[in-house]
Amino acid sequence: MTSIRDVAKIAGVSPATVSRVMNGTANVNEEKRQRVEAAIEKTGFCPNELARALYKKSSKIIGVIVPDIENPFFSELAKAVEDEAFQNGYRMLLCSSGNNAEKEMQNIQMLVQMKADGVIIMTDSADTGKVLKACQVPVVLVDRTLQNVNEKAVVKSDHYKGGYLAAEHLVQCGCKKIVCLKEPSGYSSGNERYRGYLAVCEKYGLKEQSVDCTYVYEEGIRAVGKMLEQYPDVDGVIAGNDMIAMAVYKELTRMGKKIPQEVQLIGFDDVKFGQIFTPELTTIHQSIREMGTAAAQIIEKCVEGQPCQKKNIFDVSLVVRETTMEW
Amino acid sequence: MTSIRDVAKIAGVSPATVSRVMNGTANVNEEKRQRVEAAIEKTGFCPNELARALYKKSSKIIGVIVPDIENPFFSELAKAVEDEAFQNGYRMLLCSSGNNAEKEMQNIQMLVQMKADGVIIMTDSADTGKVLKACQVPVVLVDRTLQNVNEKAVVKSDHYKGGYLAAEHLVQCGCKKIVCLKEPSGYSSGNERYRGYLAVCEKYGLKEQSVDCTYVYEEGIRAVGKMLEQYPDVDGVIAGNDMIAMAVYKELTRMGKKIPQEVQLIGFDDVKFGQIFTPELTTIHQSIREMGTAAAQIIEKCVEGQPCQKKNIFDVSLVVRETTMEW
Repeated sequence: MTSIRDVAKIAGVSPATVSRVMNGTANVNEEKRQRVEAAIEKTGFCPNELARALYKKSSKIIGVIVPDIENPFFSELAKAVEDEAFQNGYRMLLCSSGNNAEKEMQNIQMLVQMKADGVIIMTDSADTGKVLKACQVPVVLVDRTLQNVNEKAVVKSDHYKGGYLAAEHLVQCGCKKIVCLKEPSGYSSGNERYRGYLAVCEKYGLKEQSVDCTYVYEEGIRAVGKMLEQYPDVDGVIAGNDMIAMAVYKELTRMGKKIPQEVQLIGFDDVKFGQIFTPELTTIHQSIREMGTAAAQIIEKCVEGQPCQKKNIFDVSLVVRETTMEW
Repeated sequence: MTSIRDVAKIAGVSPATVSRVMNGTANVNEEKRQRVEAAIEKTGFCPNELARALYKKSSKIIGVIVPDIENPFFSELAKAVEDEAFQNGYRMLLCSSGNNAEKEMQNIQMLVQMKADGVIIMTDSADTGKVLKACQVPVVLVDRTLQNVNEKAVVKSDHYKGGYLAAEHLVQCGCKKIVCLKEPSGYSSGNERYRGYLAVCEKYGLKEQSVDCTYVYEEGIRAVGKMLEQYPDVDGVIAGNDMIAMAVYKELTRMGKKIPQEVQLIGFDDVKFGQIFTPELTTIHQSIREMGTAAAQIIEKCVEGQPCQKKNIFDVSLVVRETTMEW
């Protein structure tokens, strides 16, 4: 196998110079650089840490693919992964897919080619699932699940309980006409929360009322009009996440409805912005930081050849703030 | 130079199998994989796209290093880079440094080893500057400048004008005791805005009043107490960014002060949350999206060998919403 000394000899430079050219961390004069590059090309030498990582054990890179870097749920989660990774000598590479399956697949391919030690991904695309199934690096699914992925582990909240707690809280606040803003794309997270809501409807004999609404702020603004058309006497709203809850607050207030006096409102996630917002959001707390940390630790365990738990379901809790009130 | 055929021959498999092992995109039986990996190790073969990128022209990767992924200014900017990159066949790798110079340097090293086509970075560390100076890939400084970096280009707002506009707006709203919350770490952005504020003080014969406050929300909460102690009759506040403006609003309101009736308040950045917030923030608009797009385009131009403009200063403008009022 070609060594750095062989390359240096052919190029007529010191091994240290070869190393500097490859790492790109110091200036090397242009003529020397060209000789080194020619020698590398000639010998097919795999020189640096990254190239070694191509067939060695660990690149010390954890890849994270999130659907939307602008949603604080995902940036808070990525921050937690980063903190855990850095503490243990790993680096995080973050990719934002915009919920676009093509981007997700490109990002997975890139991370695999870099021999990332693992990929932490939040996705709902069946196509992406196929790519993940064939993926040679450990995959940790976070927040949402997919069928047939061969994942190392799943890290997520108890969404069913979250939906149940949210709906039951509104009932206890006196709401009789609760509308659930339901994610229409079939995300496992949204489906499970909706089932929790349905269970409460059944328990208290309430009518199911739902309106489709994705997880993006602007969609929340649009959904309010549709909701009032379909359910003009709505007195409680379960939003898909805190961003949607903020959109519903803004739009209902603009239309002259008083929150929580006329319509009570609950979010989901407990992102920091929910507390910064005025009024502060009543919401379902997800352990965002703990989930990010757990996902990173699973990858670290894989690298060390240690076993890891496949199903990691985090408990959720109700946080009552200013957008609901018990009478 | 070793070819994929040589490796396949030694391993006794087809070249397609070697390719599958290296790309990790399909399942290969364990025994075959081990033979392929042994052959690769023996020959020192550099097999895949990434390894080729080690000495070839373009890896089609744009690296972005931001100080704080949780601040929406940076996530909005990263999103813009990602959109521009994806449109042109590039992929973005995002690293969050937590304003930690050691993390920044590790991230730069990693991106250089990957032969990223360029690094877009927001930093203020002189140590990081030294690493950037020796960096063999194009560097674009965004938002903040550093001395002696050999950067390809700088992309930033006209912070001086921003500080000036903010202060003059408060004067026009009748404020006489304006406090500037000043970033204490010597960031170029903060310094320039402060100079704009000073110019307005001089123009209108106002006393300079400032309190140190970083760009992080929690610091804004703490700064309010200090501000009221030093300047109990403050009637206008220039916050370092929109996150700080939100913190000041929350804390002043908690203490019983009315905004904008008793204290007028202006932010900086015009992040989307500033409009989601209630009351909607008066602020200085930065062209966040356009700056991210421009930074990515500069790197693309470098790859294509096209010239690019070194200094890219974006105009700012005043956006009057609900936290200030002209009498």
